[in-house]
Amino acid sequence: MATLPDLAAIRAAHARIRPHVLRTPVLTSSSLDAEIGARLFFKCENFQKIGAFKARGATNAVFSLTDDDAKRGVITHSSGNHGAALAYAAARRGIPAWIVMPDNAAQVKLDNVRRHGGTVHLCRPTVAAREAMCAEVEASTGATLVHPFDDERVIAGQGTAALELLEEIPDLDAIIAPVGGGGLLSGTAIAAKALRPEIEAHGAEPANADDAARSLRSGRVEPVASTTTIADGLRTVLSQRTLSALRTHVTSIGLASEEGIVRAMRMTLERLKIVVEPSGAVPLACLLERTLDLRGRRVGIIISGGNVDLDRLPWQQQDPGTKP
Amino acid sequence: MATLPDLAAIRAAHARIRPHVLRTPVLTSSSLDAEIGARLFFKCENFQKIGAFKARGATNAVFSLTDDDAKRGVITHSSGNHGAALAYAAARRGIPAWIVMPDNAAQVKLDNVRRHGGTVHLCRPTVAAREAMCAEVEASTGATLVHPFDDERVIAGQGTAALELLEEIPDLDAIIAPVGGGGLLSGTAIAAKALRPEIEAHGAEPANADDAARSLRSGRVEPVASTTTIADGLRTVLSQRTLSALRTHVTSIGLASEEGIVRAMRMTLERLKIVVEPSGAVPLACLLERTLDLRGRRVGIIISGGNVDLDRLPWQQQDPGTKP
Repeated sequence: MATLPDLAAIRAAHARIRPHVLRTPVLTSSSLDAEIGARLFFKCENFQKIGAFKARGATNAVFSLTDDDAKRGVITHSSGNHGAALAYAAARRGIPAWIVMPDNAAQVKLDNVRRHGGTVHLCRPTVAAREAMCAEVEASTGATLVHPFDDERVIAGQGTAALELLEEIPDLDAIIAPVGGGGLLSGTAIAAKALRPEIEAHGAEPANADDAARSLRSGRVEPVASTTTIADGLRTVLSQRTLSALRTHVTSIGLASEEGIVRAMRMTLERLKIVVEPSGAVPLACLLERTLDLRGRRVGIIISGGNVDLDRLPWQQQDPGTKP
Repeated sequence: MATLPDLAAIRAAHARIRPHVLRTPVLTSSSLDAEIGARLFFKCENFQKIGAFKARGATNAVFSLTDDDAKRGVITHSSGNHGAALAYAAARRGIPAWIVMPDNAAQVKLDNVRRHGGTVHLCRPTVAAREAMCAEVEASTGATLVHPFDDERVIAGQGTAALELLEEIPDLDAIIAPVGGGGLLSGTAIAAKALRPEIEAHGAEPANADDAARSLRSGRVEPVASTTTIADGLRTVLSQRTLSALRTHVTSIGLASEEGIVRAMRMTLERLKIVVEPSGAVPLACLLERTLDLRGRRVGIIISGGNVDLDRLPWQQQDPGTKP
């Protein structure tokens, strides 16, 4: 049975990672509040180390290892932010990190892994190629695999963002996190419901990759039908572990159109004056399109990250690959 | 004799505007610190109401008016942020605002004025056309002119950003603000030197519009030789009043190349994950190019604003009009 962290584990993670990650600010915008008709509190994990919340989970996993395990290093596969996060955490502990990435990953994400000292192994962008490459590196190094989300310590770390948000704004009616593999949403929902049982926890995902919403309905892990979404961090499917957390704690999952995601991303740059990646704009897109209708409520939103390719912002191009 | 505010006036401004403007956060970045070799503290006025520090000065001016003067409204000329700021402040007080703008102003700046309820009068982009239009509106309405920088109340308001920064980070060795007309730099330098006499106050301006540096050397208000800089907020010349403040309080003015400004702007988006307008990136550009060499020091930087045209970021185009 796959285990999940509880509030005590999330609090322990918070104490463990505090010297290594940032306590990110919470921003508000009266013009966005007026647009949505709700009071919004944005927890800015785009300001986090490596530019995304993933630093929290990876750091908790790396600093939970025994010295014996740690010295053989860590390995993961990741389209980007988790790879950079694991490289960052490993560097903080002084151990090696190997990151298996698809050879079509964005340049900014490759650079981010390498800048933090990770060793990148490129593979073809298929599950089989990725698993073969991981197995090969694991066998030759004895490194510990740190899964991007199907890991109790990673989920506990991701939950620390919601912990901080609720410490600062205790009287939220609802909290929203984007959902890909479900690590962030699981940690967020577990922390929020434990601290404030009356809060609603919602997920937000692209309509083009609505596997989490379908999984919540069917009760089993559903595959992604297509991966043609600009929100590249959310193309992943749930695991049994994260599905179980979502079934227990999550009220609903909103779906956002591709146009809505781009519009929400642009509004975030224009109104909040912060750089957000497409995945991080999905909760606001769901509020704009009312697939999450939280008008009149006090709503916390986890802005998951800010690693974007500034040479090509999505409203500046027509890329047929990202259209429905 | 043109008068300048003292610390007491800046403190009074702070109390007056507090209900109407934001206390903006101070952000840091270990990767930018490493790049520059100094410890940098960014006071994020891009998060301020209307997206720029100008909300502070305009609000102080508007709320300093007598009820009799206030009811006839306010007027100003501005290429953008000050106009939006005056419209915002007037709306907070419930009085009309007329904003005279050049007909080549960026769309984002026109929208910003109108969104805050200001009435825009477009004129040709010459000093004569602007003054004629201002005089006409003043005569027909009895509105009070609020100059963008040559005004004691405006300078006092702009100084409140430095006041807050030094409250939060008291042990700065230096503070840098961009300089156009000199309102922000005057207020910043007066506040900083009064609170901490050993601090150095520095200005930062484009090498292509180096009139403030030349004025500080010659002791009189020098004209701008050319206005071909991307930092459109800094094309203005000093007034006798702001020159006098700079001569008393400012140690030096760094000059930034156009390439340096674009590079610093991009680094700010990439590393700090915040949206900054070109003028707001000029201090970092001076540090990058070492026309301000503050290595090993603790340096406060006023990020002046974040109103940019997101359809055309400067590294995405070759615009011959902005090249040296």
